[in-house]
Amino acid sequence: MDIPSTWLRPRAEIIYCAPTQETDDDAIGSSSKFPLGYLIAAHRTQNVVRSCSRWLQDQHYRPWRLHPLKLQPLTPVPSDLEISRAQVAKPVDQLATEIGLLPEELESYGRNKAKVRLSLLDRLHSQPDGKYVLVAGITPTPLGEGKSTVTVGLVQALSAHLKLNSFACLRQPSQGPTFGVKGGAAGGGYAQVIPMEEFNLHLTGDIHAITAANNLVAAAIDARILHEATQSDKALFKRLVPSVNGVRKFSPIQISRLRVSLNTAVPESLATATAGLSWVVDTNDRFLRKITIGQASTEKGQIRETGFDIAVASEIMAILALADSLEDMKNRLARMVVGTSHSGLPVTAEDLGVSGALAVLMKDAIKPTLMQTLEGTPVFVHAGPFANIAHGNSSVLADKLALKLVGRDGFVVTEAGFGADIGMEKFFNIKCRASGLRPNVVVLVATVRALKMHGGGPHVSAGSPLPREYIDENLSLVAGGCQSNLKKQIQIAQQFGVPVVVALNVFKTDTQAEIDLVCQIARECGAFDALPCNHWAQGGRGSVALAQAVKQAASKPSNFQFLYHSEMPIVEKIRTIAQRVYGADDIDLSLEAQTKIDYYNQQGYGSLPICMAKTHLSLSHMPDKKGAPTGFVLPIRDVRASVGAGFIYPLVGTMSTMPGLPTRPCFYDIDLDPATEEITGLF
Amino acid sequence: MDIPSTWLRPRAEIIYCAPTQETDDDAIGSSSKFPLGYLIAAHRTQNVVRSCSRWLQDQHYRPWRLHPLKLQPLTPVPSDLEISRAQVAKPVDQLATEIGLLPEELESYGRNKAKVRLSLLDRLHSQPDGKYVLVAGITPTPLGEGKSTVTVGLVQALSAHLKLNSFACLRQPSQGPTFGVKGGAAGGGYAQVIPMEEFNLHLTGDIHAITAANNLVAAAIDARILHEATQSDKALFKRLVPSVNGVRKFSPIQISRLRVSLNTAVPESLATATAGLSWVVDTNDRFLRKITIGQASTEKGQIRETGFDIAVASEIMAILALADSLEDMKNRLARMVVGTSHSGLPVTAEDLGVSGALAVLMKDAIKPTLMQTLEGTPVFVHAGPFANIAHGNSSVLADKLALKLVGRDGFVVTEAGFGADIGMEKFFNIKCRASGLRPNVVVLVATVRALKMHGGGPHVSAGSPLPREYIDENLSLVAGGCQSNLKKQIQIAQQFGVPVVVALNVFKTDTQAEIDLVCQIARECGAFDALPCNHWAQGGRGSVALAQAVKQAASKPSNFQFLYHSEMPIVEKIRTIAQRVYGADDIDLSLEAQTKIDYYNQQGYGSLPICMAKTHLSLSHMPDKKGAPTGFVLPIRDVRASVGAGFIYPLVGTMSTMPGLPTRPCFYDIDLDPATEEITGLF
Repeated sequence: MDIPSTWLRPRAEIIYCAPTQETDDDAIGSSSKFPLGYLIAAHRTQNVVRSCSRWLQDQHYRPWRLHPLKLQPLTPVPSDLEISRAQVAKPVDQLATEIGLLPEELESYGRNKAKVRLSLLDRLHSQPDGKYVLVAGITPTPLGEGKSTVTVGLVQALSAHLKLNSFACLRQPSQGPTFGVKGGAAGGGYAQVIPMEEFNLHLTGDIHAITAANNLVAAAIDARILHEATQSDKALFKRLVPSVNGVRKFSPIQISRLRVSLNTAVPESLATATAGLSWVVDTNDRFLRKITIGQASTEKGQIRETGFDIAVASEIMAILALADSLEDMKNRLARMVVGTSHSGLPVTAEDLGVSGALAVLMKDAIKPTLMQTLEGTPVFVHAGPFANIAHGNSSVLADKLALKLVGRDGFVVTEAGFGADIGMEKFFNIKCRASGLRPNVVVLVATVRALKMHGGGPHVSAGSPLPREYIDENLSLVAGGCQSNLKKQIQIAQQFGVPVVVALNVFKTDTQAEIDLVCQIARECGAFDALPCNHWAQGGRGSVALAQAVKQAASKPSNFQFLYHSEMPIVEKIRTIAQRVYGADDIDLSLEAQTKIDYYNQQGYGSLPICMAKTHLSLSHMPDKKGAPTGFVLPIRDVRASVGAGFIYPLVGTMSTMPGLPTRPCFYDIDLDPATEEITGLF
Repeated sequence: MDIPSTWLRPRAEIIYCAPTQETDDDAIGSSSKFPLGYLIAAHRTQNVVRSCSRWLQDQHYRPWRLHPLKLQPLTPVPSDLEISRAQVAKPVDQLATEIGLLPEELESYGRNKAKVRLSLLDRLHSQPDGKYVLVAGITPTPLGEGKSTVTVGLVQALSAHLKLNSFACLRQPSQGPTFGVKGGAAGGGYAQVIPMEEFNLHLTGDIHAITAANNLVAAAIDARILHEATQSDKALFKRLVPSVNGVRKFSPIQISRLRVSLNTAVPESLATATAGLSWVVDTNDRFLRKITIGQASTEKGQIRETGFDIAVASEIMAILALADSLEDMKNRLARMVVGTSHSGLPVTAEDLGVSGALAVLMKDAIKPTLMQTLEGTPVFVHAGPFANIAHGNSSVLADKLALKLVGRDGFVVTEAGFGADIGMEKFFNIKCRASGLRPNVVVLVATVRALKMHGGGPHVSAGSPLPREYIDENLSLVAGGCQSNLKKQIQIAQQFGVPVVVALNVFKTDTQAEIDLVCQIARECGAFDALPCNHWAQGGRGSVALAQAVKQAASKPSNFQFLYHSEMPIVEKIRTIAQRVYGADDIDLSLEAQTKIDYYNQQGYGSLPICMAKTHLSLSHMPDKKGAPTGFVLPIRDVRASVGAGFIYPLVGTMSTMPGLPTRPCFYDIDLDPATEEITGLF
């Protein structure tokens, strides 16, 4: 077995420096009964043996010495912010020590948050991974069905109640929804990440770093187009390769581009015709959806139409979520296609000479942020790519670090955005393909409310009161939803060979008969188990039964398999997802989509996995078709590529990449008391 | 004398808990020789006396137990990044302890940076302030004359060599220049803030917070215009004051607006006609200077022309720099005028209901960031408003915290942007007026290079080789520059009643005769003293003579006075600055400027101080006029108001609020080694 050198060295040194009780180096040196060298050698050998055996012990599963925080749930359940504020979080460095992190692996950001260094992966590289649990959902109502609260409640149950090492891995929320319509994303009730205001606001600045990096590329493209359009090749060369003390030298970034086009005088001549990257802000700003730029006279008429996306829709966010090391992230950033040259070739971030700067801007963002649940159990918050045009899952690195930290028999619970047809499918086919990790269990979150909608209940929309059907008992609507959407989503998970546990997120209006019915039908449809859970009102204690079922399911062998081989032609991959996941009869490619696919094949992107951009409100492309629609053909309007992130994304219908502010945004209720520094109005 | 209760209590408790050597409460209780109550009372009185006298001692100047970092300067001087990387910074919590901060006053951001809580001001409120030193400069060449390096070199000399408590207060640099043309701003050579890459990159996220806050207001304005334009009053009211459980209630933010317009049905009806706030990004992005927004069909034709500024030009940055408490910042944010209603009234951030959210976004940014110099002495980095359309100085709060921390006889060295005619004038008339602080000394930075330019030397521009006049000895050009620009800048400082020490930032091409000449003429022109300094090549040791001169000057009584009373009419204030600072004969107001001034008077903004937006390359408005121009009339093209920040800013010529990227931006040389995590190419 290999002992990682980075791990052994400091440990051996510590033992050598600290004299043991029986022997003392100086005393041995002065006694002279034995040859000094022999004794020292023996002593050192003993130390090495000790150190190795201690190292071996460390590789085995050891329950953390976690001190859970006590919870005393109130009835009625107070607001999320009141609950969060009533609990005093452990100092994050204490939490880190409890779960086996070394002080030098932690970078604190204040008292409640810390980034964890990736060197941890080297230290624990031979530690076996824990069990890997995905939380996904049935097709939701527009109100959301509580996947994050289930995720947090489940780890609270596993860690604080079943005493099993376990970690939640969550996405960092965008500030757009926090100040817009949806509010925060730290969970809710007695299943939350705390302090919820720190979770929902800047966190450790990763989204801001993404914004800065994305907008640097955006600025670089247009500036380059301008300078190319308004200067001769000679002038351009002189400026791009300036004379320093009489010598013109290419920069390393320029040299790596030279390999591609050695025969051009101007090393990175792009003659860029079109820019393919939008600016981003982490704000819901509808007025930036479509804009015209370059209208100042200084830009010499280089006017063009473009737009802003919300920051979490940036390809850089998807890269952060999929990278598995600093080097991998740097390479992916360099590979991003950010425009097309006049000759039709892709122009990458590296071609613009900006890839090094991007890696520099993102060097801290790649470290996951450690926080805690209301019960003092650990959480990683890291990355949060949009779930429609990107893959909607938290980071590969957070999952990998967490799997090592929990160790064999521990649990890592990670969450996929939207319904299982979108978030889970992308988790398996994109995230697991990139990471090499294999999931053990899928927890499928359902609510009586969403099931009634799928069973034929009236329209549900945000901001309007819920119709009576959703408040009174209605077993036939529940049964209809179970037999259609729930059944289909269970089947989707089963296609990947992973056991499914259905978690019914209980609302106070649900009746016992409704709850029993859901659990019964779910089991009949092939779920390994199905249980109601009450984490929102009770914290981890309300999810103990779910935790036990997940533990049982995880002990079964998993036969995980991808839905398609990456070498399958792009069109076939799209068709496979449409038919086997969504239930479509076939797909219908627009001419534009077909042309793009041909181009991507030509450029060598043909073996990238597929990231469908589809509504999350239906298994089909039609948001109003609830249940499990059949007999439809999925229209593929366009196809795009995120070459750095590493996927092709077909557009099914129109996906908004920039939410808007409503008439009365959340921010009306948000305030700060300057005396106490207490925040109100976040939820 | 008032003993601050927050201070006394913990100290008294510590003494009470720890039994003294002579007596022991329990022993006394059991001996019964004296009435117990009497003894305990005596014991406690003794403790209180001790505690008070210790407290009194603490109020006096106490040298820090600072452990300076050793410096071994190399010749030739290596690159800034190599120097920064060769020095191992102290852990920031160690530095904090050395300078008397309590652990609970610190919020670490990794190992090298920490935010300092404002509660420190309460704890030390009766501690006398240290000496307050401003570093300003003569009119610079476009290459900059090294104010930041002088500032850092000076505190290195004061702290590490003269053993005087001293703090540097610097602005946080924008990332625009870091990746654009100018590079970083951490100082240079052996006078730097370290680690320079952390200083120059995200720091603790303050500029990102400003960007997020600014863009939330920007999004809020246009969304509001859209919703007002496309809904009936009734519909608008219903949405703005939604029924919750059958009751319509105003939010607190809405109620504070109701006071202003009680008679409207829609509480904050703005009927906003024009928006007065730009978006910002912290990137040099010329293509966003002038844009058209709202072109997507979802915005229903509400198209308008607008633009982006660089983040440091945001009014929110100026507010951060001028606020003296969380409450003050919140009030200033609320007062920001962000548009004009149809009836011509100013619309504030509070009117939009967004002021609470802004305070929430900015609640951490208000805490200054502690870092250190190459010699391990403390530095605050906080705020960095643009020096043209804003006031170009670091924060009031950082200066205040630092003045308490150094204590009486300690030194706080803060820096003003651009030349003394701009940065220093604004420091005195705007920053000192807001803070109530009074400066003791001005350090005026000059270089032989800039003096030669003012003496009639050929044109100097970034990117072109320096003409020979600047490399060879030329005493007549030097004398010319001293007799014109240097003399005038000294006189400007003297008008404020503050002694001036001239710091000649020595370059390796300067000859001894040139150096001597500058110092001689400076003294003749009224400088308290004038000295060459070699911090760039030697660190603090190279600035010891300067430090001694500053110490001497600070011991003289300062007769500080403002240049104008705030109640003077706006036009008179502008004229006073133009004549007494710039040397203009008079000012020439455009019709637009006059109209705006009338409007601002009407709105009650007449007593705000003036923040001139003028080129920094000349004392006049004409960048090519070097030396000390006379016989000109200063044209005032337009006048604007930053009501939240609290100043009126007249525009003299065109000020760019968004720099552009050149053909070969700095980012070409910036790279990251993924194995070592070392950054290259920052400077």
